[in-house]
Amino acid sequence: MANNKKMVNEITSMDVDFAKWYTDIVKKAGLMDYSSVRGCMIIEPYGFAIWENIQSILDKEFKRLGHQNVSMPMFIPESLLQKEKDHVEGFAPEVAWVTHGGSEKLTERLCVRPTSETLFCDYYKKVIQSWRDLPKLLNQWVSVVRWEKTTRPFLRSVEFNWQEGHTIHQTAQQAKDETAQMLNVYADFCEKVLAIPVIKGLKTDKEKFAGALQTYTVEAMMHDGKALQSGTSHYFGDGFAKAFDITFTDKNNKPQYPHQTSWGMSTRIIGGIIMTHSDNNGLVLPPQIAPDQVVIIPIAQHKPGVLDAAYALKERLSSVCRVKIDDSEQSPGWKFAEYEMKGVPIRLEIGPKDIEKNQCVAVKRLDREKIFIALDDIETRIPQILEDITAQMYDKALKRRQEMTYTATNYDELKALSEKPGFIKSMWCGDRACEDKLKEELQLTSRCMPLEQEVISDVCPICKKPAKHMIYWGKAY
Amino acid sequence: MANNKKMVNEITSMDVDFAKWYTDIVKKAGLMDYSSVRGCMIIEPYGFAIWENIQSILDKEFKRLGHQNVSMPMFIPESLLQKEKDHVEGFAPEVAWVTHGGSEKLTERLCVRPTSETLFCDYYKKVIQSWRDLPKLLNQWVSVVRWEKTTRPFLRSVEFNWQEGHTIHQTAQQAKDETAQMLNVYADFCEKVLAIPVIKGLKTDKEKFAGALQTYTVEAMMHDGKALQSGTSHYFGDGFAKAFDITFTDKNNKPQYPHQTSWGMSTRIIGGIIMTHSDNNGLVLPPQIAPDQVVIIPIAQHKPGVLDAAYALKERLSSVCRVKIDDSEQSPGWKFAEYEMKGVPIRLEIGPKDIEKNQCVAVKRLDREKIFIALDDIETRIPQILEDITAQMYDKALKRRQEMTYTATNYDELKALSEKPGFIKSMWCGDRACEDKLKEELQLTSRCMPLEQEVISDVCPICKKPAKHMIYWGKAY
Repeated sequence: MANNKKMVNEITSMDVDFAKWYTDIVKKAGLMDYSSVRGCMIIEPYGFAIWENIQSILDKEFKRLGHQNVSMPMFIPESLLQKEKDHVEGFAPEVAWVTHGGSEKLTERLCVRPTSETLFCDYYKKVIQSWRDLPKLLNQWVSVVRWEKTTRPFLRSVEFNWQEGHTIHQTAQQAKDETAQMLNVYADFCEKVLAIPVIKGLKTDKEKFAGALQTYTVEAMMHDGKALQSGTSHYFGDGFAKAFDITFTDKNNKPQYPHQTSWGMSTRIIGGIIMTHSDNNGLVLPPQIAPDQVVIIPIAQHKPGVLDAAYALKERLSSVCRVKIDDSEQSPGWKFAEYEMKGVPIRLEIGPKDIEKNQCVAVKRLDREKIFIALDDIETRIPQILEDITAQMYDKALKRRQEMTYTATNYDELKALSEKPGFIKSMWCGDRACEDKLKEELQLTSRCMPLEQEVISDVCPICKKPAKHMIYWGKAY
Repeated sequence: MANNKKMVNEITSMDVDFAKWYTDIVKKAGLMDYSSVRGCMIIEPYGFAIWENIQSILDKEFKRLGHQNVSMPMFIPESLLQKEKDHVEGFAPEVAWVTHGGSEKLTERLCVRPTSETLFCDYYKKVIQSWRDLPKLLNQWVSVVRWEKTTRPFLRSVEFNWQEGHTIHQTAQQAKDETAQMLNVYADFCEKVLAIPVIKGLKTDKEKFAGALQTYTVEAMMHDGKALQSGTSHYFGDGFAKAFDITFTDKNNKPQYPHQTSWGMSTRIIGGIIMTHSDNNGLVLPPQIAPDQVVIIPIAQHKPGVLDAAYALKERLSSVCRVKIDDSEQSPGWKFAEYEMKGVPIRLEIGPKDIEKNQCVAVKRLDREKIFIALDDIETRIPQILEDITAQMYDKALKRRQEMTYTATNYDELKALSEKPGFIKSMWCGDRACEDKLKEELQLTSRCMPLEQEVISDVCPICKKPAKHMIYWGKAY
């Protein structure tokens, strides 16, 4: 297609301008385009195919764990949004308001959902009477709207696609277990599927979700050392149940408040994939979510037998991976650059000499390593290489994160390290004042208190009071 | 679950009150619930699982035909909606308007998409330059909003889920071929998957989509003789391209306007499934989209060996169909009623006597026919029976439609037949005046001019001018 005939060197180098590098990849790999609606993006076919692969893997896992999908309205009446005090305070300033339907002015404004806790609570209240009705383990794949001022493709947009899981349980412990379980689902998905190492941890009260008692997060480090919050899992206790007057009769026939959770992952993770793995030649996609895992490029395709061999290869591979063939008139060189830009994990070359030797050549997008494969072994070797690539990508990202993670034991160290890209580990007293001070003076925000705590020192490096937690600081998207 | 402990006889008989029968099934089978937002519904897990099966089958077919999914914004700026005159006239009166973002008044109102032609055109204009960029074959699965005054579950709601396909082509013929192809996809899906016989035809100018040159439809007849428009495929010519100034350079390097289509099917079809197949005992689901195709009910499950045999059955069947087991404490009679209500196509009973005889008993939801199956044959017999059920459901619905389709050759016949439930075939001169007259005097609307035309008479039975088309009249949802 004409508008894809871009040369690789059109991408800005990430060392020159990281933000420009990012948007170049997003645009030139065909992931998204800007729309006429401020802050809303168009996810193009190649970008959406990545999202569909993400959806398919996560959805299967949610269902395996007993969750069911539903569809809630996209509108929330203002009075419903206002029922839980913290929640409305957090979200009301950034919602879009529908005031007219057709030519009529509405008697009550409706906001376009920024998240759907209030709608689920309204539903729970109708359908939950007894302990037999619990738990309800629900999820929906929808888009939500938050009226952000500054937007960036995938990372922050007025409308974005996500899944939001909402569950309700008899006991606080059951809800806590669900919160922990779904955090692990996100962490495993990031690490094993997307090859993105994450830190699992608890958000501070300042950074937690509006209305939650606890927000757990998986935090990833991008190429430039900044953090991306990649998925969150919230424990609500019975706060929403009380605000919405949701009760159930327990086994002793006594009324009780149930306990709730919610958890979400969004198209933002596509930004995380780009900023974790990609390079100056374009996108590098983790094999499991790549729309095409292998692209076959015939070499000297006009020569007898080459195209037939390429088609035969595609036919055989299509039972073990997602494979396409590019038999267009473009030169092999053009095709190499094109599929490097698009991040296809393996390029498979086959030409007259390969056919003679009964082999083909796999070139890994990640590091351009060439692997000669006997044609007889193709169905076993390709899936192995795809798996190896995922492991290699993970190791590479983990190594970078380790190299860019520093430890601070006093304020001077915090200050010096805040100038460097990366994460800073330190202890923390737990006081909001210290957190605010770091934000104001060093532009550092708390990322999370990791579940795997270490003892770095005895005191908070900011106020020197006794330390309560180990915490990660950083700059975030 | 407590709130599912409803008895079958709580359903209103369809002969007593068809509308009440419909909403009873919708509610009691657990398909949907009402929300606090006027006219917006909650699709509950069982209803949404049906929609997911519909999505999965249609999406696969769309992709097989070369379509790709995308995600467009949910908002349309007012100026964009207004670009195509007929389109805005049709939709502006029924859209929801966003006027405020957070606390700010917007400089331009945004409507929540009622359909997305204008957004796709805005995108096409950016990405189409040459004939090499065509065709674009796109689709999205989203919800849209139309500010309807009167709403009914699935059939008409302010917000509804659908897919909207949007394609753009070099020539009018290519766009016409696409329109015809997608009409056939819908017709085949209705008939072969949902067992709903449909009439393929062209809408009159009065009934066509706002902005289309031609709207094709698949029309189905419900139990009560009313029509349900079940899917539509629109041919736009170059009208939208001209309004949005979308051009491409052809192979001779000359600028040309491209030609467009759109096509959609919505959750409304779930209403169609209910009103085509269900009965006074509840839902009857076509096997291919039933969330559970088989429910195993152990008989005398406390007796030794019964539960083990039932679990073994489930294990074996799960490779050939969607199967669940109900080993709860409820009585078999309660379970029979429950899964009849939920429309599970086959109930499989297994008890001590069956085990002795090395058999089980399949009972078809459709007609309660009992089929004894040797346990050895279970993996081959069950898929066969599921196929048979689909065919039987289709035949039954087709027979009803045939019996309730009448022919009129003059106005008196039209008038007499308009009192009966069902479709009326007649000739038509093609004039809007005659169509308006039937609507006003007999409350009949045109359903479609079927692709399979017959010659019923030479003149229009309304005005007696020469007939141009054979047409179906009816009352519609």
